Amino acid sequence: MALAKKPVNGMKDILPEEMQIRDYVMNVIKETYRSFGFTPIETPCMENIANLSSKQGGENEKLIFKVLKRGEKLNLETAQTELDVVDFGMRYDLTVPLARFYSNNANNLPSPFKALQMGNVWRADRPQRGRYRQFMQCDIDILGEPSNLAEIELILATTTTLGRLGFKNFQIRINERRILKAMAAYSGFPEDSFDAVFIILDKMDKIGLAGVAAELEKGGFPKESIEKYLELFRSMEGKEDVAAGVSYLAGQLGEFLEEEVTASLKEIAACVNDTKEAEFDLVFDPTLVRGMSYYTGTIFEIAMPEFGGSCGGGGRYDKMIGKFTGNDVPACGFSIGFERIILLLLESGFQVPGQPGKLAYLIEKNYPEEKLAQVVAEAQKERKAGKQVLVARMNKNKKFQKEKLAAEGYEEIKEFFNRD
Amino acid sequence: MALAKKPVNGMKDILPEEMQIRDYVMNVIKETYRSFGFTPIETPCMENIANLSSKQGGENEKLIFKVLKRGEKLNLETAQTELDVVDFGMRYDLTVPLARFYSNNANNLPSPFKALQMGNVWRADRPQRGRYRQFMQCDIDILGEPSNLAEIELILATTTTLGRLGFKNFQIRINERRILKAMAAYSGFPEDSFDAVFIILDKMDKIGLAGVAAELEKGGFPKESIEKYLELFRSMEGKEDVAAGVSYLAGQLGEFLEEEVTASLKEIAACVNDTKEAEFDLVFDPTLVRGMSYYTGTIFEIAMPEFGGSCGGGGRYDKMIGKFTGNDVPACGFSIGFERIILLLLESGFQVPGQPGKLAYLIEKNYPEEKLAQVVAEAQKERKAGKQVLVARMNKNKKFQKEKLAAEGYEEIKEFFNRD
Repeated sequence: MALAKKPVNGMKDILPEEMQIRDYVMNVIKETYRSFGFTPIETPCMENIANLSSKQGGENEKLIFKVLKRGEKLNLETAQTELDVVDFGMRYDLTVPLARFYSNNANNLPSPFKALQMGNVWRADRPQRGRYRQFMQCDIDILGEPSNLAEIELILATTTTLGRLGFKNFQIRINERRILKAMAAYSGFPEDSFDAVFIILDKMDKIGLAGVAAELEKGGFPKESIEKYLELFRSMEGKEDVAAGVSYLAGQLGEFLEEEVTASLKEIAACVNDTKEAEFDLVFDPTLVRGMSYYTGTIFEIAMPEFGGSCGGGGRYDKMIGKFTGNDVPACGFSIGFERIILLLLESGFQVPGQPGKLAYLIEKNYPEEKLAQVVAEAQKERKAGKQVLVARMNKNKKFQKEKLAAEGYEEIKEFFNRD
Repeated sequence: MALAKKPVNGMKDILPEEMQIRDYVMNVIKETYRSFGFTPIETPCMENIANLSSKQGGENEKLIFKVLKRGEKLNLETAQTELDVVDFGMRYDLTVPLARFYSNNANNLPSPFKALQMGNVWRADRPQRGRYRQFMQCDIDILGEPSNLAEIELILATTTTLGRLGFKNFQIRINERRILKAMAAYSGFPEDSFDAVFIILDKMDKIGLAGVAAELEKGGFPKESIEKYLELFRSMEGKEDVAAGVSYLAGQLGEFLEEEVTASLKEIAACVNDTKEAEFDLVFDPTLVRGMSYYTGTIFEIAMPEFGGSCGGGGRYDKMIGKFTGNDVPACGFSIGFERIILLLLESGFQVPGQPGKLAYLIEKNYPEEKLAQVVAEAQKERKAGKQVLVARMNKNKKFQKEKLAAEGYEEIKEFFNRD
């Protein structure tokens, strides 16, 4: 029986052209983040299924690729549910594994600990164009830093990286879970309905103010609260400057919003704007929700005009590590949408800069042994001098072979014939 | 319920210290292989379970982590066997996925195609010290090159890489499946028992000549054949020079060994010895078997005195791609034992060369906003100049914090106090 040539459904092979760009982007990311003091770490691609099903992962927990138990532990005959036959699962993000990693290794890590993770994650989403079931994530996180220095460093490191990859005129949209809560409380929504309200608010960029109003009404929320809530958002329109926007909102919300939240956001904005390297705008967005329920403070998102949706995001999640250790540790992270960045670069015809010269040596069949060593020695010399040298036999269809090599960027093609 | 802090059984977290060495080694590997014209590619970590169970993977097929079907496709109640409940599996090597990749993408690839793969593989081995169930493999393969230029390039590229990582005085041990077969045929073993004979021969380095003789006898093979076979190996002892060893053996085996095999091995040895960059010996080893049944020609292995076992290996497998396409394509590959290399470097106290200077800025709590921006601006300047700068809040236990930073290699620690 012939074997399947295609990758598994929803995943993809990565060909040399794309791979070259990926490698370049990974290097820029690593070098830039390293200059900010982030150190690379890695966790296994699998985690215990209980860790992945602890409600930290939100909707992603429905999309886990689960790993079958092995040997004696597997008993298909008596199995009632999935949990009887699986023990591990593929990670769906890098945040839950990082929290486990930190809990396991904190004694051997500095404080604060600045982690860089680049690794694949898996989600059993319905396959669709441009969205794959295995994809690379690229996260930086600062663990053990309670102050807003974490947010400042994360935003500077991420934007500096994007700038060095050639992106400009993008936005970092920022908000705070405590602002979201204060706005909902001020409007009179009961506290136990906040999450439901935020899920609807999260659709603002798709359905607009009127759509949000309609969905809140459908949700059975009091008309008065809805009107008060929407009026707040209406009055915020155009107030994208962080200091101005936050100050205005603080005036409206009064005692519903802690003074500390306002001061911290203003400090983040002032410091980032004074010291940023990349060209971007830091923007206050009170409609920004970020799906994951684990966020506890600041949240942020990268918005690029060239690309419809978000190109990454993050925030503060001070309560997650406590789920592993019983003791909370302040934590804040920022994730770059690696696959979207690659897509944007591929679509823009991006060329990796500073590639070494490429030479191809084509050798006729039955080329004599003693002369072959001379050709290879010449190749070795060029390689040592930094060139990229392909040594290959001449194909029967040499013309086609040379055309293909030229298309691949081989500038010089030397031919070696027996008669020479 | 508290979550598990440990990684899943048999897999490991990789901490900053090891990660730094891994990143360095990966870069040396990528840069060196690139200079030989190898281009990086990637395949998904999962493959269809049928592709992984096609007898190409030998013993590794018993160690597959299998992935549970999802949604409607999963029916636990009617399931009889594992195959009813799984559709994908984690790859156990990079060779089977490469053959699938090539079959799927050959039209968009050059000929010959020189592939570099660095990626994790998974094997559900019994967990044991120093051996993990997720580990990195690093393979180069040349597809579409029938001549021994493939072997020459693979050996030169691999050994140059090892040399640049600081390894010397290692061996590349080489043999040919057709020599193995000729020796068995010459000794009078029936052809359908060759594989059984080779499995026993493969234990030579562990049990010695006498042990091999005993096991062959236990296997019921004719005494005369066993004696003739062992006499051949005895007469080969000390004949490690490839040209001398192969010539001697050719004389003994007569018409059992094709002239082409001898000539090709000699040519590989002459060319490699004339042009190699690293310090190593190419050695003929007629007892070298290499487990995988897919090898069809040359086989080779890296032996390091510092490390008991093999540190990598490879060979020619001209019949595998035909299993996917129906048309055979010449193929030859060499895999570096990445995890063993890392272990050797870690144990030898290896230091990554040329690390950038590391500075730490510690800032007192409640440091005024306008001055904070100045400190961050200074950090940004140093980062741009190539330094690695950590900006962090002073911990309550500052002395301990500074000791830890110093241990991490921060040469300079600047402190910023409110009163300054």
